[in-house]
Amino acid sequence: MRERIEDALRAAIRDGRLAEGARLPPTRTLARDLSVARGTVLAAYTQLATEGWIRGTRGAATTVARVAADPDQGDPGATDPPPPRHDLRPGRPDPSAFPRAEWVRALRRALAEAPHEALNYGSAQGSAVLRTELAAYLRRARGLRVRAADLVVTTGFTQSLTLVAHALAARDAGAVAFEEPSLEPHRAIVRAAGLAVVTAPVDAHGIRVDELPPAALAVLTPNRQHPLGVTLAPERRAQLLERSRTDGMLVLEDDYDGEFRYDGRPIAALQSLEPSVVIYAGTAAKALAPGLRLGWLAVPDALRADVVAAKELLDRQTGVLDQLAFAELLRSGGYDRHIRKMRLRYRRRRDVLLTALGARFPDLEVAGTAAGLNLLLRLPDAASEERALAAAHARGVALQGLAEGAYYEGEPEYGLIVGYAATQEHAYAAAVEALVGALGNAGVESTRPSARISIPS
Amino acid sequence: MRERIEDALRAAIRDGRLAEGARLPPTRTLARDLSVARGTVLAAYTQLATEGWIRGTRGAATTVARVAADPDQGDPGATDPPPPRHDLRPGRPDPSAFPRAEWVRALRRALAEAPHEALNYGSAQGSAVLRTELAAYLRRARGLRVRAADLVVTTGFTQSLTLVAHALAARDAGAVAFEEPSLEPHRAIVRAAGLAVVTAPVDAHGIRVDELPPAALAVLTPNRQHPLGVTLAPERRAQLLERSRTDGMLVLEDDYDGEFRYDGRPIAALQSLEPSVVIYAGTAAKALAPGLRLGWLAVPDALRADVVAAKELLDRQTGVLDQLAFAELLRSGGYDRHIRKMRLRYRRRRDVLLTALGARFPDLEVAGTAAGLNLLLRLPDAASEERALAAAHARGVALQGLAEGAYYEGEPEYGLIVGYAATQEHAYAAAVEALVGALGNAGVESTRPSARISIPS
Repeated sequence: MRERIEDALRAAIRDGRLAEGARLPPTRTLARDLSVARGTVLAAYTQLATEGWIRGTRGAATTVARVAADPDQGDPGATDPPPPRHDLRPGRPDPSAFPRAEWVRALRRALAEAPHEALNYGSAQGSAVLRTELAAYLRRARGLRVRAADLVVTTGFTQSLTLVAHALAARDAGAVAFEEPSLEPHRAIVRAAGLAVVTAPVDAHGIRVDELPPAALAVLTPNRQHPLGVTLAPERRAQLLERSRTDGMLVLEDDYDGEFRYDGRPIAALQSLEPSVVIYAGTAAKALAPGLRLGWLAVPDALRADVVAAKELLDRQTGVLDQLAFAELLRSGGYDRHIRKMRLRYRRRRDVLLTALGARFPDLEVAGTAAGLNLLLRLPDAASEERALAAAHARGVALQGLAEGAYYEGEPEYGLIVGYAATQEHAYAAAVEALVGALGNAGVESTRPSARISIPS
Repeated sequence: MRERIEDALRAAIRDGRLAEGARLPPTRTLARDLSVARGTVLAAYTQLATEGWIRGTRGAATTVARVAADPDQGDPGATDPPPPRHDLRPGRPDPSAFPRAEWVRALRRALAEAPHEALNYGSAQGSAVLRTELAAYLRRARGLRVRAADLVVTTGFTQSLTLVAHALAARDAGAVAFEEPSLEPHRAIVRAAGLAVVTAPVDAHGIRVDELPPAALAVLTPNRQHPLGVTLAPERRAQLLERSRTDGMLVLEDDYDGEFRYDGRPIAALQSLEPSVVIYAGTAAKALAPGLRLGWLAVPDALRADVVAAKELLDRQTGVLDQLAFAELLRSGGYDRHIRKMRLRYRRRRDVLLTALGARFPDLEVAGTAAGLNLLLRLPDAASEERALAAAHARGVALQGLAEGAYYEGEPEYGLIVGYAATQEHAYAAAVEALVGALGNAGVESTRPSARISIPS
């Protein structure tokens, strides 16, 4: 009864029926009217006064305090947006492939063994259990020279870059160099941390190291340049490390999809050549699921404490349940198995896409096909990119334009970045068909008559 | 065989046996020596060249590139630190109470229903499924005036404060006001975002609103001041909101343990009185587990887009698996049941502690006992706090000193903040005994002979 009195009064005050200064009935009167004990009304008034809705419960006049009037319109709730009809967005794995049952089993097994203290406030650097498994995985799968003590667990590459940028900003580092083209949101992170952004162009051998402006850090995608798909050539790797040794420039190696190479064997990470100047960044976003939010950094000794301090400052630590389940998935070999399975699946999809494009558009230039989750269809100008995007949009095909995506700080190039991993398996053939139809509508076949399909390795 | 050749050469280059410029044997020679096909050796050399270990595979002289020499010392792995023997640290729930099996079940049920798209890159604001459940919970349990659309899901209060600070810093807001005393790491977050910190003292009615300096935001703990344990009095609530209406100061209500009130009923959040000026911050850290990293903000319309933009910039989105499992726990009523169970457990523990302290130290001033996960033992000076901490440390009791904890920007007060929730249930009696023993050793009983045990409501 007391709660009902409170609720009724709160509602009346909220929706303005009881305005500021209005006198409430004396407790004795209200109790008689409602046929309840006076103590019940008194208790309700006391609670409302404690919460700040009314004033002066003990004197004669109990009045309404000043409170925002705002009729409660109810809550329609919220709904997550549906996926596009044909999902060919780049940088996304097949979300239906996330091993849901295996993940739940891994979490259950991990929680069966984890000490209670694992659930408490813990290490900003990351769970030791995960770092130990992850270091072994990175040595095995990506050739890293890394120990558990070198790793920092993050919530993905976005946070990894944020942490490195904050650590450098605290040292008054000057500029951070990016590849041109590169992801605009990454450059935005660096700018938001108070650092300047500079760029160097990318050619068929990767970033032009000789055109890199002075910088405290270069953020690079050596394994597979995003979005162009070029692998950093051996002589550029040597040049880059030479530069680092000379002027102290650090390299942040964004190894976002290093596990997915279809032609030839995986190329060991740059970090393995010179772990003292290369910060290695990995993620579970492409191999498991983007929504999982798990990433990691291998950080050289000189910078590690600052990166961990930034992590502690910004969000204290990464969630332990994901960390423990992922450690168990690594330990059991389930992660390796999943990657092998997905590598085969994505390679098949790439082949399907190349065949379909080659049959219909023999003159279209296709790049970045040896690895990764997407390839690049080059287009000659802004008009053809816009036409192709409009045609794709009209057929419900979601993909990314090269100029549209703001990858370039300067004059953009043109093309479509087509992600062949993002759709579900059963929907893939239809997505490719829709893409081919859209490209046909846009007249893409005639845009570069002299080019051949090139499949760089 | 090819891999063994590669591994052997990588190892020799890493540990310095093959130095920069050293010539590798010609492929033909090595193939003969190893009795393998020349093509095998050539493939190994090509891979090593691609990765940057050697140069010039196609000419006559294949030489070792410049690579950091660094004998691999193996990886000892990492170990998480053990918990203290007697864990009376403040602000921590009993980690053994985390409902492990129920959480795994909730995740399994949530994953059985979630669309595939839920695992993709998703909303920086948070899963709509969780926001819908959470809004209903906050209306029901904390009296909030909130809809799903008002909420932002974060990884805990640390990130919540970071996001609000970044959103304000982008507007060139001036100062942020804190209670004196308050948590130093929170003030550090605000400073790191480039904002000034100002403070106002706390008395028996909560923060002295009349002493609040001009500020764009006041970060407050109205339900239970941390660490003093005072509840913000009704007249102070009115004064605070009047101030906000007058000069536009926002309030960030840190409702870190609002569910845990033992004497009397929960006090509805300040946000319910004036949702247009109060940003409400909640967390699962005290009710479930700190390591979970789940928090939430109810943000007034005017600031919400900026807070969501800061979230997207800093770490893109909160992990979906935790969000979906938590939504299911809210939906099923499991979260409410867990809180009711823990509220009873912690109230029993508080009573045990008060009885033990009252019996042995009748003159000790004990504050902040009506709610929360910890209480405050006031001590008269630095020497007595240091003595008490040393005695506690000697017995393996982990707790927090008021001066030691850097809660004060100015002259500190002295005391011990004793967390009665942090230990496991079976270990609690021994922890209280160890604390009482330590306080006896430190001579605490005689520090304030004139004071009585006061239990403010």
